[in-house]
Amino acid sequence: MTDMGKGSDKGRILLSVTDWDPEVWRAEFAKAAPDRPIVLAPDHPGDETIRYALVWKQKPGSLANLPNLKAIFSLGAGVDHIFHDPHIPDVPIVRIVSDDLSMRMSEYVVWQVLDHHRLGPRYRRQQQARIWHEDRRQPAANEVTVGILGLGVLGRDAAEKLLALGFRVTGWSRRPHQMEGVETFHGKEGLGDFLAGADIIVCLLPLTSETKGVLSMSMFARMKQEGPLGAPVLINAGRGGLQNEADILAALDRGLLSAVTLDVFEKEPLPADSPLWTHPKVTVTPHAAASSAPGALVPLIVKQIEAYERGEPLTNLVDRNAQY
Amino acid sequence: MTDMGKGSDKGRILLSVTDWDPEVWRAEFAKAAPDRPIVLAPDHPGDETIRYALVWKQKPGSLANLPNLKAIFSLGAGVDHIFHDPHIPDVPIVRIVSDDLSMRMSEYVVWQVLDHHRLGPRYRRQQQARIWHEDRRQPAANEVTVGILGLGVLGRDAAEKLLALGFRVTGWSRRPHQMEGVETFHGKEGLGDFLAGADIIVCLLPLTSETKGVLSMSMFARMKQEGPLGAPVLINAGRGGLQNEADILAALDRGLLSAVTLDVFEKEPLPADSPLWTHPKVTVTPHAAASSAPGALVPLIVKQIEAYERGEPLTNLVDRNAQY
Ligand SMILES: NC(=O)c1ccc[n+]([C@@H]2O[C@H](COP(=O)([O-])OP(=O)(O)OC[C@H]3O[C@@H](n4cnc5c(N)ncnc54)[C@H](OP(=O)(O)O)[C@@H]3O)[C@@H](O)[C@H]2O)c1
Ligand SMILES: NC(=O)c1ccc[n+]([C@@H]2O[C@H](COP(=O)([O-])OP(=O)(O)OC[C@H]3O[C@@H](n4cnc5c(N)ncnc54)[C@H](OP(=O)(O)O)[C@@H]3O)[C@@H](O)[C@H]2O)c1
Repeated sequence: MTDMGKGSDKGRILLSVTDWDPEVWRAEFAKAAPDRPIVLAPDHPGDETIRYALVWKQKPGSLANLPNLKAIFSLGAGVDHIFHDPHIPDVPIVRIVSDDLSMRMSEYVVWQVLDHHRLGPRYRRQQQARIWHEDRRQPAANEVTVGILGLGVLGRDAAEKLLALGFRVTGWSRRPHQMEGVETFHGKEGLGDFLAGADIIVCLLPLTSETKGVLSMSMFARMKQEGPLGAPVLINAGRGGLQNEADILAALDRGLLSAVTLDVFEKEPLPADSPLWTHPKVTVTPHAAASSAPGALVPLIVKQIEAYERGEPLTNLVDRNAQY
Repeated sequence: MTDMGKGSDKGRILLSVTDWDPEVWRAEFAKAAPDRPIVLAPDHPGDETIRYALVWKQKPGSLANLPNLKAIFSLGAGVDHIFHDPHIPDVPIVRIVSDDLSMRMSEYVVWQVLDHHRLGPRYRRQQQARIWHEDRRQPAANEVTVGILGLGVLGRDAAEKLLALGFRVTGWSRRPHQMEGVETFHGKEGLGDFLAGADIIVCLLPLTSETKGVLSMSMFARMKQEGPLGAPVLINAGRGGLQNEADILAALDRGLLSAVTLDVFEKEPLPADSPLWTHPKVTVTPHAAASSAPGALVPLIVKQIEAYERGEPLTNLVDRNAQY
């Protein structure tokens, strides 16, 4: 124990979530760290018993005025949901990096890349109409380039798994990176060449003030015009704020995009009157690409807290300037 | 040249295909081996100018009475389409083994495994009804066992790619095999344990007199009763003759199977009145899992012929007794 605990008192953990059921998280904590009480709200303003906060879309202001708060843990890989709150105390913010989450996201990416590559929508339409017809133009994976926007923890894992299937893979990031088997581009200056080469574009960017709305007409207009099976396909599993949905619909209608898969939306749940639900070239999933599994993630958070209390540095820290 | 050619005469190649367009194959041969004339039929019974035969569901008898025939090349990985013909001369039969074909089959297998694992049919139904609902029971790949019937060239490639995504993988073959990361079973005695452990079963067996109809009620009744998301899923991309379609429908209705994907059928094209077309738990594709791409395969066949004529042994030979 360091001086942060009061004797054997490890302090309490604030669980501040909206949209999600807090009880499953509380139950996992009770298993992994039974000596660390979880509370859903401070007892009073200035509650000094709260040492750590676990958050998912916390109510704005709910982290303010906690004098002994040492760190904030995001319960998802993204942290944009934290920054909508102007009252975030100046303590380290830790985000989720876990094999479980990466595995789930790569499943989703590979699934949707293959569904477009292997003409899933077409074969399902044919099945409904009892049409037996094979498209003999089917390219093989090594004739198709998948371009990944965002070469972070998730983008790199997806890239490896797509490479293993035989796809050509390219990636785009903020700073330069090297990755075996992947042609990399970075920054605004690298975006044009990245876009010119990709047949299927997968977005795994974080939502920041720089990336907000990047998936818009100005990007779609710079994409490849004709790939092995037509115009490019877009898959967004990053955040809804990255995309301009009116532009996506316009790009589909103008043939700049041949199809899209969206797991995230400007407004979630996707409103019932959104034309995306019924557009024949749109696949919608309900922000289910890579869910945070409490059973897999809570032990990692508990380990981080224990290491921190032994005096080791926190890992997976968020850069507040970069916002990710 | 060996003594098989008459001076500079390399002999002619018989291309005996039904269901497929022979012209694309002829065109690839013209590119890869312009000095080897392709014919679609012998000039006369006993035509001694024909040295090799390339076949896909050849007309029965079309290979008989070719005194200088040296080898038969199957244009697909399977060879059951050759053996329906009682008049196959006693020359070596070579089948297709190619990275291109393996890549295509593994794309298909991974695509369909993920489509079931990630609840594709459910999310598509929800989209149609504009329902935003995530199934929080979604297991991760490493909680799911994919069992592969047939650990041959295609089964092993699919196993590796499923392992890379994090799935647990098991396999079943005729003779014992070892494969890193894969729990293997073999023979009739090994089938029960294989079936008891698999959540998703992928069939990549060849059609032989031993395997005919294995995908029947007697197998379905021995499968796991409850996996992470319900009863097992069956994917058959081997041959239609491996499956009993009435039994598959009965197993779906009795809840022994939760869903199936079929690329191959007892009768192809699948008849318009088959209940498989419209069954809500059946995905139908038109024998499109891994098509033979003439551009990728013809150069391999030409290489085999050239090596053979230099006196090297033919590879990828079919065992006539085992029928694969
Ligand atoms: N749909 C879901 O279920 C779900 C689940 C989990 C996560 N997510 C989303 O996935 C995102 C990515 O997660 P991660 O763990 O891979 O994040 P990460 O490790 O922080 O990686 C972010 C990547 O984006 C790049 N990037 C950031 N700003 C950029 C800019 N302005 N221009 C170009 N590239 C930029 C970064 O470039 P550098 O490498 O140069 O820093 C990095 O490669 C999360 O932020 C979250 O929003 C969604
Ligand atoms: N749908 C499509 O588009 C498509 C495309 C290409 C191929 N295919 C089908 O895929 C099949 C497999 O191709 P492949 O290249 O992987 O064949 P392969 O290399 O010959 O492998 C066949 C596998 O099946 C096993 N097997 C054979 N008879 C068995 C029995 N009685 N009991 C248990 N296991 C048995 C073999 O066991 P051993 O290892 O012990 O010999 C071997 O592991 C082809 O025959 C073809 O029908 C379909």
